[in-house]
Amino acid sequence: MLKHQVVRAQIEKSLDGLAPGDPVPSERELAERHLVARETVRQALRELLLAGRVERRGRTTVVGRPKVVQPLMIGSYTEDALARGRTAGRILVGWTDLVADDQLAEQLAIPVGSPVLELERILTTDDTRVGLETTRLPAERYPGLATNFDHRSSLYAEIQARGIEFARTTEVIETTLPDAREAALLTVDARTPMFLLNRVSYDQNDVPIEQRRSLYRGDRMTFTARLTA
Amino acid sequence: MLKHQVVRAQIEKSLDGLAPGDPVPSERELAERHLVARETVRQALRELLLAGRVERRGRTTVVGRPKVVQPLMIGSYTEDALARGRTAGRILVGWTDLVADDQLAEQLAIPVGSPVLELERILTTDDTRVGLETTRLPAERYPGLATNFDHRSSLYAEIQARGIEFARTTEVIETTLPDAREAALLTVDARTPMFLLNRVSYDQNDVPIEQRRSLYRGDRMTFTARLTA
Repeated sequence: MLKHQVVRAQIEKSLDGLAPGDPVPSERELAERHLVARETVRQALRELLLAGRVERRGRTTVVGRPKVVQPLMIGSYTEDALARGRTAGRILVGWTDLVADDQLAEQLAIPVGSPVLELERILTTDDTRVGLETTRLPAERYPGLATNFDHRSSLYAEIQARGIEFARTTEVIETTLPDAREAALLTVDARTPMFLLNRVSYDQNDVPIEQRRSLYRGDRMTFTARLTA
Repeated sequence: MLKHQVVRAQIEKSLDGLAPGDPVPSERELAERHLVARETVRQALRELLLAGRVERRGRTTVVGRPKVVQPLMIGSYTEDALARGRTAGRILVGWTDLVADDQLAEQLAIPVGSPVLELERILTTDDTRVGLETTRLPAERYPGLATNFDHRSSLYAEIQARGIEFARTTEVIETTLPDAREAALLTVDARTPMFLLNRVSYDQNDVPIEQRRSLYRGDRMTFTARLTA
């Protein structure tokens, strides 16, 4: 193991006795305690930051909160967060009118060139920005959506209110690093590993409802799955 | 967007016309073509490398192969790879005798201090190291395993051959960066985002079979899930 990884493990162990939000000792203090250079401590703290074990609050470093646990499931981000006693919010980034290219046309089972409505929102949990969600919908199926829909509410509930049932979803899960725009929107270091989820949801007649790209902060989110034989 | 991200997008687009394994133009050539500094090209290529879009072959950079697609499912890594026309292999890192600490005892539903058998293997697909799998088993349930089991074969098949059925699995999915040892075992850059999967599998009587920690290279692996209402 490299020296900063030994120090990282020692610092991480010392965090177990502290509560989320408690201040972490200063770089100078940690360097003296572990008898290493400040640069070694800095690198250890940088890795703990990318892992979500510590967080920055302005100029101080504090013990990180537990990651948000999210089951891989069909359904609303909000409903699940509320069920877990957390607050969930959404911040509008923008609505965009697109036309379906080959890929989008195939995913949404619409002709190439059809109008597509794109909604981009930041997802928050307990006021922390945890994800960036881009939903693409066949515009003709959702008349008036961009003008009538309250972007702070659940799109899942809105679609259901229009009589459409979510029957099944296919999800592709990757890891990635955020680009500059994504890092800025999610207030995250550009070296933070992220989850990238691409899903297509289908209704009771197996017609595609939406294509959704969700980028989640790996330092703040954990996903769970239950598998059966 | 930052300049290297613009160049990255341009290079990425130019890769579409090439086949996996084809050489990527040199840094000098790319710098001249895009009228930017070599350092800008270098950063763009570094990000494409972490994303798996390009790979290193000795001193040359080539177009990356498509990622390995793995469904989230109960079952054998090998069986799924073979079904997809790929070769799958395992390289032994080691067997370790452990005693169950509080956490392991709870996960495996055995008394604290019970013997636990740990098997660590590197998973390969088409001769590329894609994952590091650490399986922990209650030793008393698997007599003779460490001496009789061929570590190149499927542990899933071996456990089934002992009359144990995999009925359900709970999986926790995180992203992380590899530590130095993990990066060395997987021959991967330490800045590569990784998948970290922790699962506990249960038999037909709801008794834990094994606890498994799997670290997969994010630049080589994609997971898929099918969800139903």
